[in-house]
Amino acid sequence: MDGLLFIGDSLCDSDMFYLSHFLTQDRFTLLAQEKITLLVSSMEKGRAWKEASADEVISTSQYGVMDKLKAFGKPDEAYRQVLVEFLRDRGVRRLGVPFRFPAAIYQHLCRDFQVTVLDSPVSRWRAVKTLQEQDAIRSSQKACEKAMRLAVDLVASSESRGENLFRHGQPLTSEQIRSSIEVALLEEGCEAVDTIVAGGVAAADPHARGTGALPANAPIVIDIFPRSKSSRYFADMTRTVLKGEASLEVKEIYQAVLQAQIVGLEAIRAGISGNEVHSRVVRIFREQGYPEREGCGFTHSTGHGVGLEVHERPSLSEAGDTLEAGNVVTVEPGLYYPEIGGVRLEDMVVVTAQGSKNLTNFERKLVL
Amino acid sequence: MDGLLFIGDSLCDSDMFYLSHFLTQDRFTLLAQEKITLLVSSMEKGRAWKEASADEVISTSQYGVMDKLKAFGKPDEAYRQVLVEFLRDRGVRRLGVPFRFPAAIYQHLCRDFQVTVLDSPVSRWRAVKTLQEQDAIRSSQKACEKAMRLAVDLVASSESRGENLFRHGQPLTSEQIRSSIEVALLEEGCEAVDTIVAGGVAAADPHARGTGALPANAPIVIDIFPRSKSSRYFADMTRTVLKGEASLEVKEIYQAVLQAQIVGLEAIRAGISGNEVHSRVVRIFREQGYPEREGCGFTHSTGHGVGLEVHERPSLSEAGDTLEAGNVVTVEPGLYYPEIGGVRLEDMVVVTAQGSKNLTNFERKLVL
Repeated sequence: MDGLLFIGDSLCDSDMFYLSHFLTQDRFTLLAQEKITLLVSSMEKGRAWKEASADEVISTSQYGVMDKLKAFGKPDEAYRQVLVEFLRDRGVRRLGVPFRFPAAIYQHLCRDFQVTVLDSPVSRWRAVKTLQEQDAIRSSQKACEKAMRLAVDLVASSESRGENLFRHGQPLTSEQIRSSIEVALLEEGCEAVDTIVAGGVAAADPHARGTGALPANAPIVIDIFPRSKSSRYFADMTRTVLKGEASLEVKEIYQAVLQAQIVGLEAIRAGISGNEVHSRVVRIFREQGYPEREGCGFTHSTGHGVGLEVHERPSLSEAGDTLEAGNVVTVEPGLYYPEIGGVRLEDMVVVTAQGSKNLTNFERKLVL
Repeated sequence: MDGLLFIGDSLCDSDMFYLSHFLTQDRFTLLAQEKITLLVSSMEKGRAWKEASADEVISTSQYGVMDKLKAFGKPDEAYRQVLVEFLRDRGVRRLGVPFRFPAAIYQHLCRDFQVTVLDSPVSRWRAVKTLQEQDAIRSSQKACEKAMRLAVDLVASSESRGENLFRHGQPLTSEQIRSSIEVALLEEGCEAVDTIVAGGVAAADPHARGTGALPANAPIVIDIFPRSKSSRYFADMTRTVLKGEASLEVKEIYQAVLQAQIVGLEAIRAGISGNEVHSRVVRIFREQGYPEREGCGFTHSTGHGVGLEVHERPSLSEAGDTLEAGNVVTVEPGLYYPEIGGVRLEDMVVVTAQGSKNLTNFERKLVL
């Protein structure tokens, strides 16, 4: 293989950001050989030189993209011609492209090069975090905990009246808490694409964001996954809290989830498979009387890697590979029932040779 | 063609969001036939049913994805098998896939189906906005203007002392203004992935974000492109302001940019090509004594479509196609010189049969 080629924008393609540290919403090309070369529009060249960690930055105007546009009429065709010349100049004949390489360009390159579609090696590299990456994640986690503190305090300081929670005489809403979380994260240099603040039966769907007045006497799931605007690394944590009276059933569910999380956390170490960690969590739920059923109970995987994406390798699920030291993963068992709602607890840990280091420093307490 | 197939996440693939109104960070499959069908993980099914505008939502567990995972070992292989069965069940034999369809899945599907890679028709549909979409963009623009007002007021209320601007005895920084903009946008339900607040020579690169103390007596480029968190539609605007004394040269540059923007805005109507609008702007700059030179002068295109992406069709550039009524485009000429900095003015308009409606309501004034 003479090189690995990526085409996309690094805002969406984290592999490209990982390899270049060049952040842009606009499509560009990255060639990974002994060194990393970027092919960008002439407008982006200056910034790419300054910001990217690439060895070389070439602009499409160096390959006469404007003349080619005049000749071919179509921007995509002009771009493909530039690409062919760019690759030939770099001695490329056999080329690797990742899983999600654009089909149209793949098809075109197959005419002039020997192209192999690879399982992206970069997402495997990304799964093992350097100390610097771990620091970046830790710093996002600190912001996450500040926001979680604010959210939990809002629920704690509310009043349970009838079916809903109130603050200063007004119903306390999901939107209000979410907005406080987002402002707090922004002050810490983080953004949150989505934050879950879902109470009562709404939380029975683990991905429901939550809207409207929050219920009294019912579990409220708060799941925050901020991304640092500077480092681009995520953190991820969940707590479930309740204001008012908890039913015996909800208390038992919470205890079962807590127990399952402890079992999951204790299972983690380099060398164990994500599948095995997940199996142990599934088993402990079954033993405690919460077997799997279609659509309710423990409906998702035990955890996932966290880094430049909020969900990345490795997975703690039936598809989970062997864990390595330096992986950063969540452990987030949950139980969901349409008539009750949801309970989920999520910590984030670094995998080590002997076990794991928990990056989450926040109490697990149901009733506030 | 029996259907058009999309695979990706709708956070990054706006075509998929446009067709489904289902927002997720996780990969899913969308098949567009007479009706829209989503193929999602069992965990996402409930939310997809509730939130998506699709006609049908199928979960991968209905195709036994877990059993296939056990049989094949690899999640990607299991997914591809599910996909083949899903497509066969829907009578698909000849399949269209968009430009950026994942190469690995394309390659696999070619074995069982007749697959054609298409120039995405969806991005062409997206270029013409319905009245509802125009309202969504207008609403993001309102938020944008509130944030711009705040930013311009911060510069206006600063003191020009020596080389820098000061407020309350402290240097006024790009970060400070950007942070005020972001909090204001958040309060309006919008997010900003990036905001440019670049002063002096830093602004000579049109995409530089700007850092540190802002200069006195030099143009400051403020470019805000918020996205509504609920509708997902963007707005986009730029103003250039200066506190202190403007040199004659900077004043002339500002006048040239303003003149070019007026020429660009007046050229716009349904039926003209984006290329022609751009040519007129290039010509007026040349006539005013600002010809193109490599790397400085007017270094970018005149404008771009705005919608679910901040840069989308149609383009006002050499590659620009014919404008249609309902297009929403920016008109944003600028001039950039390494020794001076940059000046850019950007409004956003809806293309109409006779001309355009300007969605931007904000004064253009250099010296505050």
